[in-house]
Amino acid sequence: MSQQYQMRFAGSGGQGVILASVILAEAAVICGFQAVQSQAYGPEARGGVSKAETIVSREKIWFSKVLRPDFLLALNQSSLNAYAPSLAEGGVVMIDDSLSAAALPEGTRFIAVPILRTARETVGKAFTANIVAVGAINAALRLFPDEQLAEAVERHIPAGTEAINRKALAAGAALIGAETARAFARSWE
Amino acid sequence: MSQQYQMRFAGSGGQGVILASVILAEAAVICGFQAVQSQAYGPEARGGVSKAETIVSREKIWFSKVLRPDFLLALNQSSLNAYAPSLAEGGVVMIDDSLSAAALPEGTRFIAVPILRTARETVGKAFTANIVAVGAINAALRLFPDEQLAEAVERHIPAGTEAINRKALAAGAALIGAETARAFARSWE
Repeated sequence: MSQQYQMRFAGSGGQGVILASVILAEAAVICGFQAVQSQAYGPEARGGVSKAETIVSREKIWFSKVLRPDFLLALNQSSLNAYAPSLAEGGVVMIDDSLSAAALPEGTRFIAVPILRTARETVGKAFTANIVAVGAINAALRLFPDEQLAEAVERHIPAGTEAINRKALAAGAALIGAETARAFARSWE
Repeated sequence: MSQQYQMRFAGSGGQGVILASVILAEAAVICGFQAVQSQAYGPEARGGVSKAETIVSREKIWFSKVLRPDFLLALNQSSLNAYAPSLAEGGVVMIDDSLSAAALPEGTRFIAVPILRTARETVGKAFTANIVAVGAINAALRLFPDEQLAEAVERHIPAGTEAINRKALAAGAALIGAETARAFARSWE
């Protein structure tokens, strides 16, 4: 990969994008990468958009602000509209399929998946949407081996929620077909 | 206050220091501050020390790395030993009272409180230690009004755990006497 892989996760408060970001940073570390995970809260944080960022790198990360993410997860329309324009060239966006992709600059590579509905209906708990997203992101980008990702999830979820979160992770991965994964797989070399 | 107030939270994995850091950043934003919350995971992250950082400022935060924290929470001995030397001059350390303060540079201002025991015995759930710590930190430093802090907690805990976390927050605040709060209160002016 290039020096750094920069990921941004955005949604409304309560959708758990911070935890999604923390889990992917932890998975990176388990796999031997360096990672920085952060939230910057400015005045815009009061507008109902929650944003979190993860930088993954083979080398020490000196500057921890994400300026032009290589990947964006958007779970609600306002975060998609707000952050789509800042995507790096060749970057990838994953959106919940209830959103309109009209805000995306022409030619943007994006994946629309039913994250919120899968959490609600397949997993049976709306609050697992962030873990469904983590499963889908990892399957689409082929970032980390399943086992290390599952370990990262377990380290950050409340005790007693292991089973439902394992189900959410698997349900998220199942949303991504082999074709999509081939098209979006990210190489770390 | 000076330009920025830099806080570091450290403990073993599973003690929830990231969440403590996120909650105090959120409380800052609710109160009109700017805040950055981050985790940097380097090779040392595999040594069982979990570290999180919050910067609070009246103004835009351009540099988000904490170099010399004004405040350090240490929930285990290895994180106290690792991070005590980097404390800013005049900085404050809060440690769980099961730890040895021998690693602290002479003259360091510190508060030892039974965070882990309070979570386990008074609240009845060991996993609430991070919220007990948040309550104790806020009471000792007088950072934010109780109501805004409680709102920040509610925004970041799993649904269904509101009551136990309210209890933890109050139990943490109750660990700090009026004398301590007078001695350690931080002014934002």
